[in-house]
Amino acid sequence: MSVQWGDEEEAWFHLAWLRDNCQCAECRHPSTLELVLDHSTVPASITAAGLEMEDCALRLRWPDGHLSRFDAGWLRDHSYRTEHREARRWRSTPWPADGRDFPPSFDYQSVMDRDDVLLAWLRSVRDTGVALLRGVPTRPGEALRVADRVAFAQQTNFGLLFDVRSKPNPTSNAYTALALEVHTDLPHHDDPPGYQLFHCLVNEPPGGDTVIVDGFALARDLRAADAEAFRLLTTLPVAFRYQDERHDHRVQSPLIALDDRGEVATVRFAPNVVAPLDVPFELMTAMRAAYQSFLTMARDPRRQVRFRLAPGDLMTNDNRRVLHGRTAFDPGLGDRHLQGCYLERSEVFSRVRVLERRLARE
Amino acid sequence: MSVQWGDEEEAWFHLAWLRDNCQCAECRHPSTLELVLDHSTVPASITAAGLEMEDCALRLRWPDGHLSRFDAGWLRDHSYRTEHREARRWRSTPWPADGRDFPPSFDYQSVMDRDDVLLAWLRSVRDTGVALLRGVPTRPGEALRVADRVAFAQQTNFGLLFDVRSKPNPTSNAYTALALEVHTDLPHHDDPPGYQLFHCLVNEPPGGDTVIVDGFALARDLRAADAEAFRLLTTLPVAFRYQDERHDHRVQSPLIALDDRGEVATVRFAPNVVAPLDVPFELMTAMRAAYQSFLTMARDPRRQVRFRLAPGDLMTNDNRRVLHGRTAFDPGLGDRHLQGCYLERSEVFSRVRVLERRLARE
Repeated sequence: MSVQWGDEEEAWFHLAWLRDNCQCAECRHPSTLELVLDHSTVPASITAAGLEMEDCALRLRWPDGHLSRFDAGWLRDHSYRTEHREARRWRSTPWPADGRDFPPSFDYQSVMDRDDVLLAWLRSVRDTGVALLRGVPTRPGEALRVADRVAFAQQTNFGLLFDVRSKPNPTSNAYTALALEVHTDLPHHDDPPGYQLFHCLVNEPPGGDTVIVDGFALARDLRAADAEAFRLLTTLPVAFRYQDERHDHRVQSPLIALDDRGEVATVRFAPNVVAPLDVPFELMTAMRAAYQSFLTMARDPRRQVRFRLAPGDLMTNDNRRVLHGRTAFDPGLGDRHLQGCYLERSEVFSRVRVLERRLARE
Repeated sequence: MSVQWGDEEEAWFHLAWLRDNCQCAECRHPSTLELVLDHSTVPASITAAGLEMEDCALRLRWPDGHLSRFDAGWLRDHSYRTEHREARRWRSTPWPADGRDFPPSFDYQSVMDRDDVLLAWLRSVRDTGVALLRGVPTRPGEALRVADRVAFAQQTNFGLLFDVRSKPNPTSNAYTALALEVHTDLPHHDDPPGYQLFHCLVNEPPGGDTVIVDGFALARDLRAADAEAFRLLTTLPVAFRYQDERHDHRVQSPLIALDDRGEVATVRFAPNVVAPLDVPFELMTAMRAAYQSFLTMARDPRRQVRFRLAPGDLMTNDNRRVLHGRTAFDPGLGDRHLQGCYLERSEVFSRVRVLERRLARE
């Protein structure tokens, strides 16, 4: 059946789909909002026994007497006409070409106190993939407080909160004074963390500047420049491995994952934990070349945004989009101490929706 | 170049791949074991200036004088000849056709005290996708102690530890006395938990039996029976949504995900949190039918393994393979109380490797 709204927009719905999605308390548990209706019982050929419009809602009576009611707004929000599906799809925001006011920054205290500022910061993190908080107290543990303001910190083999400073007997290059090439964190996990929070407590020595790269832009540019390399990096796995006395994480995964529409959804890359390539012999030479292309593009200074984190800054970045790294520093010339933690991807998206709903009600 | 081992097995390696994977302390940080060598500097055309065998190791001298040494065992472990790649690939274990000694069970105290029993239990969890512990103390919080014995519990929007019992104002059908159809947990998350731990504290009323289904077998059977439905369920998304006062999780994802070899890697399915299907209009009827086929197969009693958790039992299952549910119960006829938590997929695989390494050394 076809529905037309006041603005002349129109969409077609299958009657069976409408019966599937009846919003009444018998079909959906009124408290849990979860489905109770058995979807296997709705035949594709179901017909309507009656139909009327009432108060901007569609009322449908089914052959067994059951009654369904659909608000016009709900129908619009769930229309599966191509244009409507495209319009409500989440899209990442490209980085500004001129680099002005980038990364976007927000005031820590306002984010902690005000839901509207929290929402603005989270939207920036979600859409642009990176944002800064300024004026964060320089006491240890503050990154966790910020994570708790959003949802909860996600534990990993590095702990709930990890300290990034030059240490004796480091278990990761991050814990040395070496330059860290741009990378995403924990590519050796099946599910790398969604977002990373980096809180700068001390940053005295020269060097140790932060470097970030938009991995989505990189992947799209690679696709345009070398479609075959892009195809290899989206279909053949790169091997990652992290090991210490208590852990041995190994993953084989393509560097670039596409969503169901073929668009770049995830980038996973860290040259320091890459393990020997394990692809069919006849594809090895092409795969090595594709990997080298990606590596070279990631290092291109024209792609890299550089800035210096000052004590009290907290950078949040999308760990499935943004590569981050740092320049080398001399630990003899001063102390450098960052603390980090992670947030799950789903929790950030969920928090944005809940804040939007709450602020719209007020 | 070609390498032949004592058992006449042979494999070819690219010289550039060998240079990439030099194991010396200059190319790989001796403490972090992470890569230091710059992979962009190794040309595909690199040649060897010298080659010799020494003590079951291959020594290669490169044109710039650098020396690499590869143990024969390491080369075998990393050979990318098709047969060698296939042989070392992890594969799930099918469930026994006769259902005997299934799910496999292990003694709680032995798992807590002995690394070899811990390893046997974890291998069973990893490979079969389900295993029971018996004799777990019936005090709350014990599921977390078991999780900590493996790695750490993974927090979700339901908390670190969640109580499954009939509650007033439930936020999930799990917290009612309704039957729960077989499902995987948290399909509305980008990254559903890897493994679920379910600890039975009290199970008094009749009903409330546990039901599990091997989702990998289901997916493979669907592929054999209806290749087109299988194709739709691996490429078109199903929408999942969970909402309560503080959360609004939405994900669009295929029910079945394949790995880079086209084999079933992940099943994601929960009929109670399914949201309106959002696929192109012209595919909706076929997609509804494919979804109904999956639903019907999941409910087939011949696929379902049923048993009753007793107080002191703890079930662990692979949440990306095994569907689980329960029969309805009457909360008026007694108390039923389970506690659950989650483990990450990577942590289980990592723990198995570390235990294997440690036990092999002893």
